[in-house]
Amino acid sequence: MAEEDERQRTAFFLSDGTAITAETLGRSLIAQFENIRFAQQSLRFINTAERALEAQRKINETAVVDGERPVVFSTLVKPELRAIVMQSNALYLDIFATFIDPLEQELVSRSSLSLGRFHGLIDTAAYSSRIEAVDFTMSHDDGSTTKHLEQADIIIIGISRTGKTPTCLYLSLQYGIRAANFPITEDDLEHPRLPRSLAPYRDKLLALSTDARRLQQIRQERYANSRYASFEQCDYEVRQAEALYRRLGIPMLHTTLKSIEEIAATIVDMASLDTPRRRGGGKVHV
Amino acid sequence: MAEEDERQRTAFFLSDGTAITAETLGRSLIAQFENIRFAQQSLRFINTAERALEAQRKINETAVVDGERPVVFSTLVKPELRAIVMQSNALYLDIFATFIDPLEQELVSRSSLSLGRFHGLIDTAAYSSRIEAVDFTMSHDDGSTTKHLEQADIIIIGISRTGKTPTCLYLSLQYGIRAANFPITEDDLEHPRLPRSLAPYRDKLLALSTDARRLQQIRQERYANSRYASFEQCDYEVRQAEALYRRLGIPMLHTTLKSIEEIAATIVDMASLDTPRRRGGGKVHV
Repeated sequence: MAEEDERQRTAFFLSDGTAITAETLGRSLIAQFENIRFAQQSLRFINTAERALEAQRKINETAVVDGERPVVFSTLVKPELRAIVMQSNALYLDIFATFIDPLEQELVSRSSLSLGRFHGLIDTAAYSSRIEAVDFTMSHDDGSTTKHLEQADIIIIGISRTGKTPTCLYLSLQYGIRAANFPITEDDLEHPRLPRSLAPYRDKLLALSTDARRLQQIRQERYANSRYASFEQCDYEVRQAEALYRRLGIPMLHTTLKSIEEIAATIVDMASLDTPRRRGGGKVHV
Repeated sequence: MAEEDERQRTAFFLSDGTAITAETLGRSLIAQFENIRFAQQSLRFINTAERALEAQRKINETAVVDGERPVVFSTLVKPELRAIVMQSNALYLDIFATFIDPLEQELVSRSSLSLGRFHGLIDTAAYSSRIEAVDFTMSHDDGSTTKHLEQADIIIIGISRTGKTPTCLYLSLQYGIRAANFPITEDDLEHPRLPRSLAPYRDKLLALSTDARRLQQIRQERYANSRYASFEQCDYEVRQAEALYRRLGIPMLHTTLKSIEEIAATIVDMASLDTPRRRGGGKVHV
């Protein structure tokens, strides 16, 4: 088969849970094969024999339609369900079970899996603290209040459209971190100074910045051909703001070409927010 | 070694990116070993030889302190960095590379990985559509506006504290779905009827509900000992609301004992929101 041909295959992401791990890992793996186009399909909550058989049927039908067997990225846990899906006409990549054997040997211990016990009950305390973090972040978006700011784990600042809101939402949803955010306005930049209400919280501040060209693109999508979205304005704001952060010694993160996950994970590292108290996100799930 | 002893080991989640995949998969794997307590540490953005050597040092020091070698869950991609970390005194579980070989054989194709080419440039179109979804969700939280509701991919309804806001945020952040949410108020329940502004969008509605006892717990944390948080009130609202959804044929999802990820993934399945257009979340990252 010539490597130049663009061939079509199908990738299934299969799980007894949300399939988020299978999707993330599977997508990064198939991205390594540039010359092959992949149709992608998630099969979530495959938690009964009936649903496993249905998955098997779907995979087999796809093999017939494609003329090539699909690739299945699976985090299925229960052996009896895995056995059903593994009979499909597919390359079955067993993301979960592959690592249970070496772990059992290393830990000189049998897993709940091989003992036939399963977990999944939600940890309500961790769930509550995560919801509380989301509540906090929602009520402290875009400088909407300075109340209870002392309870913030981190306060993200930045000029308009540097990614403050999605970053804070991700920090609270994924990591249970109470993340507030505050806009740096033109008024702040003229003087230049920090918003007065942030003065007591200098050690909680972290600034997001971005490339002026990229900022212009993003602002164009919001208010095309406005002064706000002009290159001159973007360039002015970026330069003034960065000078302010440097002068005050506020740690700064460039968000250009970074995904929200990367920005959030970088902040967790930079601000050492990675404590066990904040970590758990409720139920363990794959 | 007696299985009854509670032993302490350390798990490292190691990645050249955010480590989110290593964390999620690693945590679900170690949760299968109930009799062993794991200290957990993430080593993110290990993308240079220097940082790989630093990771190696940390792992080796931990092995000395613990008196047992750590377990390393790794999604490192580059062979030269993996080679450095694999020399640590640890059980190295190679989440990424384990699956590249069988994929190359199956696809009769060499991966960019083995060809020495790497990806990582952000897909700016996918990034923009995801940010747009977050913007949409933020401006359509808790019924704050009915403007542009026709652009919603889904409209989540429910009585207070059934998880509407975090669910919508997760749908937009993880899946790029434009998710609006609307509260069902006591006034709506008395008549009972839908908020009038939702009438044109009946086919986009999905209701969240929960167990009255669980709802009481959650509301207690917010307004302890209020009428709002009383069991009678919670029970009344849940029963009235569910009767309303049933009468109108609105699909309903019980959120009791479900994590935000599970609720969101279930909604994606229920409402068939899993289209390629909405899928990509920008850069591929592990």
